[in-house]
Amino acid sequence: MLISWHHTNRSELNELLPEAIVILPIGATEQHGPHLATGTDWILAEAVTKQAAQLVHDRAARPLVLAPTLPYGASDHHLPFGGTLSLTPETLLAVLLDLTRSLAASGGRRLLLVNGHGGNIGICHAAAAAASSRYDVNVAHLDYWQLARDTGDTPVPGHAGIFETALVLAQDEALVAERHPRSEPLSGPAIDGVHSAESWRRIDGYTDHPERATTEAGRIWFEQLAGALGDRLLELAEAL
Amino acid sequence: MLISWHHTNRSELNELLPEAIVILPIGATEQHGPHLATGTDWILAEAVTKQAAQLVHDRAARPLVLAPTLPYGASDHHLPFGGTLSLTPETLLAVLLDLTRSLAASGGRRLLLVNGHGGNIGICHAAAAAASSRYDVNVAHLDYWQLARDTGDTPVPGHAGIFETALVLAQDEALVAERHPRSEPLSGPAIDGVHSAESWRRIDGYTDHPERATTEAGRIWFEQLAGALGDRLLELAEAL
Amino acid sequence: MLISWHHTNRSELNELLPEAIVILPIGATEQHGPHLATGTDWILAEAVTKQAAQLVHDRAARPLVLAPTLPYGASDHHLPFGGTLSLTPETLLAVLLDLTRSLAASGGRRLLLVNGHGGNIGICHAAAAAASSRYDVNVAHLDYWQLARDTGDTPVPGHAGIFETALVLAQDEALVAERHPRSEPLSGPAIDGVHSAESWRRIDGYTDHPERATTEAGRIWFEQLAGALGDRLLELAEAL
Amino acid sequence: MLISWHHTNRSELNELLPEAIVILPIGATEQHGPHLATGTDWILAEAVTKQAAQLVHDRAARPLVLAPTLPYGASDHHLPFGGTLSLTPETLLAVLLDLTRSLAASGGRRLLLVNGHGGNIGICHAAAAAASSRYDVNVAHLDYWQLARDTGDTPVPGHAGIFETALVLAQDEALVAERHPRSEPLSGPAIDGVHSAESWRRIDGYTDHPERATTEAGRIWFEQLAGALGDRLLELAEAL
Amino acid sequence: MLISWHHTNRSELNELLPEAIVILPIGATEQHGPHLATGTDWILAEAVTKQAAQLVHDRAARPLVLAPTLPYGASDHHLPFGGTLSLTPETLLAVLLDLTRSLAASGGRRLLLVNGHGGNIGICHAAAAAASSRYDVNVAHLDYWQLARDTGDTPVPGHAGIFETALVLAQDEALVAERHPRSEPLSGPAIDGVHSAESWRRIDGYTDHPERATTEAGRIWFEQLAGALGDRLLELAEAL
Amino acid sequence: MLISWHHTNRSELNELLPEAIVILPIGATEQHGPHLATGTDWILAEAVTKQAAQLVHDRAARPLVLAPTLPYGASDHHLPFGGTLSLTPETLLAVLLDLTRSLAASGGRRLLLVNGHGGNIGICHAAAAAASSRYDVNVAHLDYWQLARDTGDTPVPGHAGIFETALVLAQDEALVAERHPRSEPLSGPAIDGVHSAESWRRIDGYTDHPERATTEAGRIWFEQLAGALGDRLLELAEAL
Repeated sequence: MLISWHHTNRSELNELLPEAIVILPIGATEQHGPHLATGTDWILAEAVTKQAAQLVHDRAARPLVLAPTLPYGASDHHLPFGGTLSLTPETLLAVLLDLTRSLAASGGRRLLLVNGHGGNIGICHAAAAAASSRYDVNVAHLDYWQLARDTGDTPVPGHAGIFETALVLAQDEALVAERHPRSEPLSGPAIDGVHSAESWRRIDGYTDHPERATTEAGRIWFEQLAGALGDRLLELAEAL
Repeated sequence: MLISWHHTNRSELNELLPEAIVILPIGATEQHGPHLATGTDWILAEAVTKQAAQLVHDRAARPLVLAPTLPYGASDHHLPFGGTLSLTPETLLAVLLDLTRSLAASGGRRLLLVNGHGGNIGICHAAAAAASSRYDVNVAHLDYWQLARDTGDTPVPGHAGIFETALVLAQDEALVAERHPRSEPLSGPAIDGVHSAESWRRIDGYTDHPERATTEAGRIWFEQLAGALGDRLLELAEAL
Repeated sequence: MLISWHHTNRSELNELLPEAIVILPIGATEQHGPHLATGTDWILAEAVTKQAAQLVHDRAARPLVLAPTLPYGASDHHLPFGGTLSLTPETLLAVLLDLTRSLAASGGRRLLLVNGHGGNIGICHAAAAAASSRYDVNVAHLDYWQLARDTGDTPVPGHAGIFETALVLAQDEALVAERHPRSEPLSGPAIDGVHSAESWRRIDGYTDHPERATTEAGRIWFEQLAGALGDRLLELAEAL
Repeated sequence: MLISWHHTNRSELNELLPEAIVILPIGATEQHGPHLATGTDWILAEAVTKQAAQLVHDRAARPLVLAPTLPYGASDHHLPFGGTLSLTPETLLAVLLDLTRSLAASGGRRLLLVNGHGGNIGICHAAAAAASSRYDVNVAHLDYWQLARDTGDTPVPGHAGIFETALVLAQDEALVAERHPRSEPLSGPAIDGVHSAESWRRIDGYTDHPERATTEAGRIWFEQLAGALGDRLLELAEAL
Repeated sequence: MLISWHHTNRSELNELLPEAIVILPIGATEQHGPHLATGTDWILAEAVTKQAAQLVHDRAARPLVLAPTLPYGASDHHLPFGGTLSLTPETLLAVLLDLTRSLAASGGRRLLLVNGHGGNIGICHAAAAAASSRYDVNVAHLDYWQLARDTGDTPVPGHAGIFETALVLAQDEALVAERHPRSEPLSGPAIDGVHSAESWRRIDGYTDHPERATTEAGRIWFEQLAGALGDRLLELAEAL
Repeated sequence: MLISWHHTNRSELNELLPEAIVILPIGATEQHGPHLATGTDWILAEAVTKQAAQLVHDRAARPLVLAPTLPYGASDHHLPFGGTLSLTPETLLAVLLDLTRSLAASGGRRLLLVNGHGGNIGICHAAAAAASSRYDVNVAHLDYWQLARDTGDTPVPGHAGIFETALVLAQDEALVAERHPRSEPLSGPAIDGVHSAESWRRIDGYTDHPERATTEAGRIWFEQLAGALGDRLLELAEAL
């Protein structure tokens, strides 16, 4: 069974929530280079989640309830480039804990955060951990793009590079503006786990080669991601 | 000119924001009785805002930029009824101030909050006041349903009663479940400005007579509201 | 019955609070132009409240308990003019929720906030809403100057203009310094619900024509306000 | 020179604040046994401060500006006894830092906190330290009753015991209800610096022998305290 | 060069910090089953860090400065088992941001967090991200036990299981109490990224087979970990 | 009995905590002039505490449990001099309340804070007061250097002057760099309870004559302090 929290009423939710997995897509509204829509992260997180849920809901061991997508995330590192509406990590943590508290108060027991923005990783992890002990709700979190790695044939996601640009093209080509070739491969910090404002400035706020993205590649990747997320949903419906 | 923040890129936003009015619809995801979709408040705030902006953008003195709707609000008073995902007022204040801070950092100078939920009134007012002095952004806020009062022929809005139910029917009849007649008129506190958990319990979490709502009335009210909001947008494009 | 919380002891309060309405005047200490005392907002809120309570307490359906006036409010928008001691909205919200929490812990069930400062409106509303669900206390809030509107024959209140200046003259003429004529009518934002630091700068931090205020007009308005607030107290003693 | 902040206007304050010492009395509204007014702490802090300022202002090296008394303090430990309106320490710290921030923004450079409540000691100290580095304001704080110790012939202050009861009797005998003899000396923790809810319960929320307090002793002690505080004001006017 | 921040003075630090990498070990004080010392996480994070720094400091491209180990972390999920001193994630985030703010104020530009506790992962990530944009400090973070995975021949770390028990035995056998055989392999959630209080209760707060840990294995693993961390330090001295 | 919390396991702690006194040393990592180690405050607080506990534990009426030393404190006033890692008072208050909450959740009933840094005094006091009512734990706090005053023959402690320098010399002479004679006695504010950034700047961040400190005097003072703290521990083991 698949339903959107906001499209149904309290009667149905009061019945479903004790058994259901609630899925909350979370993204960001932030600069994605001069070419890509600022809503990329939440638009993709929402689209992949919906597609995955459509694919598997009738095989899932539990009802799936989609909560309204949170379109804002922790994007302070993108503020210097403009076009960014960011929550501080303190605020984002409070938001996620408030929502989990509400879920528990409404009888819910299981939550999955599907995250679409690198800057949210830490807070999603921290909120999931805190909510599990504070409200006794089981919380899973995943970054949708990490599922791409498992398939083996997509490039490292990056930010506003070929990966995201292709996925957005596959959603709606109007969300991508003209892209100019970059003369050489560009990337963020070479060492995992390094955060640096300077390294973002150096690459003008986006990675690798968005100009090489195609709608066709985006469609393939999107289906791979949705499929992988669907498999994870089936697993979680058993395990959570 | 009318554009969605999330559908465009930083280049365009960096050009538009110094002159534009940014419009942020804000609602709630909360119980609306046994019959009405929990997303009512944000769905209506967003729909009225979009329609109003469509109506007037080519006559407005400034570009209109629609920010992603915030689907969560301060709904703690609805938690006892289930089906509610609420932010505390502390968190909602932080969210709105973070977004206003971001707007200022991105070069924006004017913000309009279009609120769709009674429980957000105070925080919208406080956030607008604080943001104007903290970030030197001009901020206006309004509750879309207050515009209905000015037209004279809609009932007092209430919560999940005839007014909201009709407006939602006009959006999508699938968002409204079967409604049972109530034997007598029911209402919240008779005196304005009174907040009481007991009074919500007494009326089972919704006001007046949702069973009397019709799709047709909803369509009329919706057009009235969108028209009135459009007029306000034109005024604000001059004044803000 | 009418008593001040701070003038009596715990024994009497423990007896009274389960039945009483507690009334908390709240104002601000902030610049009121070059001519008017910075304590205007809390001095007037306290004076009107006391007079109203005196007028009606022996007819009220519940005991009235006056809490100590909170002389500080959310006045950040007045800081640029000097003479201002302001709480951020975050702090004011915390103060009001702490006091409501204490009221509940002390056995109180009903609170009325009588607000004397425009900058507090949003937080009073938000605190009242939050307290009603967080501590199950019934909370009403009102802005004393809104009662003037109902009487029909006072001007729009403004800030440090003819209305407040006259009311303060009627309290104590020593609290008003020499006033110079302004050459033309001045006002804040023409559209309700707009917050703008620039608009305060434009009018030098005060509205309309304080130089036209008279002690006599102040006395008349004061009695009207106290009478209207008294009537509201009688209503609330029934309804809260 | 001596003036109340709230009784004068921004023009005068803008002139005075760069040179003046601003004095902020702070107390509490909390249970003081079955016999003593809950406003004791702020009423006494305010009274001693006013009297001291009257005594010395014309000899002081700087103008003295009295800010409105803060009638609420950190009294959570008294909540179990009723009659208490308390701020958490987190909130009180925020209040004092907000006020100091405002003072600095208004051109003030020197602040003295005159504290009347034991539960505020820590936060006054912390706020003074933080404000001095955060806003570069020089801040002194003192507990008015500590000045009594220096005179040698008053008893250890205690809470709602002979000391405070006598001082309140000297202010207004109506603020003290009938007192019953206690069969034996009672006190709080014997070791300084120990905080224990149990020890407050053991002594029913007040110390020693309030029934032995007399108006006459209260008058003598009050004059001693005011004199000592006056001397401190003269010192601080040189040193701060 | 290798020095401890707390063992040297401001003169030396003011010279070193603009060039140095500051390393902050962070752990937890929390239950580690009935057998293992509660200080395990910070003791190991500190020991591995010190050993790694000793191994490589004379080859590192930058001076290494060890900050005092933070012995408390986010361990709320262990509170139900006793023996746990935990910070909420909100507090831990504030601590790390305060320390990073201080580092920047003291002239530092590069920070490495070496984390020893699974519950800190999210907050370390969030704090590193926030600090990099808020204070323009480059921040790297790593979990020391993740380095074990790279070597290939250590088991999945777990909590208080064979891995940590062996490492602590190698530090000091007195920190490990008698261990009883468990009848079957036990583990936490099978799916990565799931947080559940129930799953901790099910395994009595510790994973796998601590009774199989040996001092000898601990020594080997410790050297592997220190070597791998040393290599990472050399990399970061180039890249950060 | 004497044990370190972090050196033992939950089994032993669960048995001991209901009866034990937990002792938490807290210091700071902050500039101590050009000559003295920045870790002075926590190194001394820890050393004195350990020595005192060693001296008396077998005579104490309750088991003594040493918690891991908190090496960071509220040192914002030292940030301008460099070499300082400071927590804001808001954060330090949160840390201490989190730890007390954990202690209570782990079954502990008694806590002693041994403070080694002047800037922590207020927050230790506030946290102790709040924890006693919020978590019903008995909390004592003391500043170790105040015990020196009682012995009569040590100088006023100061900051990084003769007192602290001598005590650190007695711990480890390598922690003290060359000291240059100061031409005249220097001190902080002459009036107790005054906080001023300017007064710290005037004395270059340290008081009196560190160049007169000797290792021998340090040893004597250390033993006096440890003895006095031991006596206090015996008292508290009876009283807390």
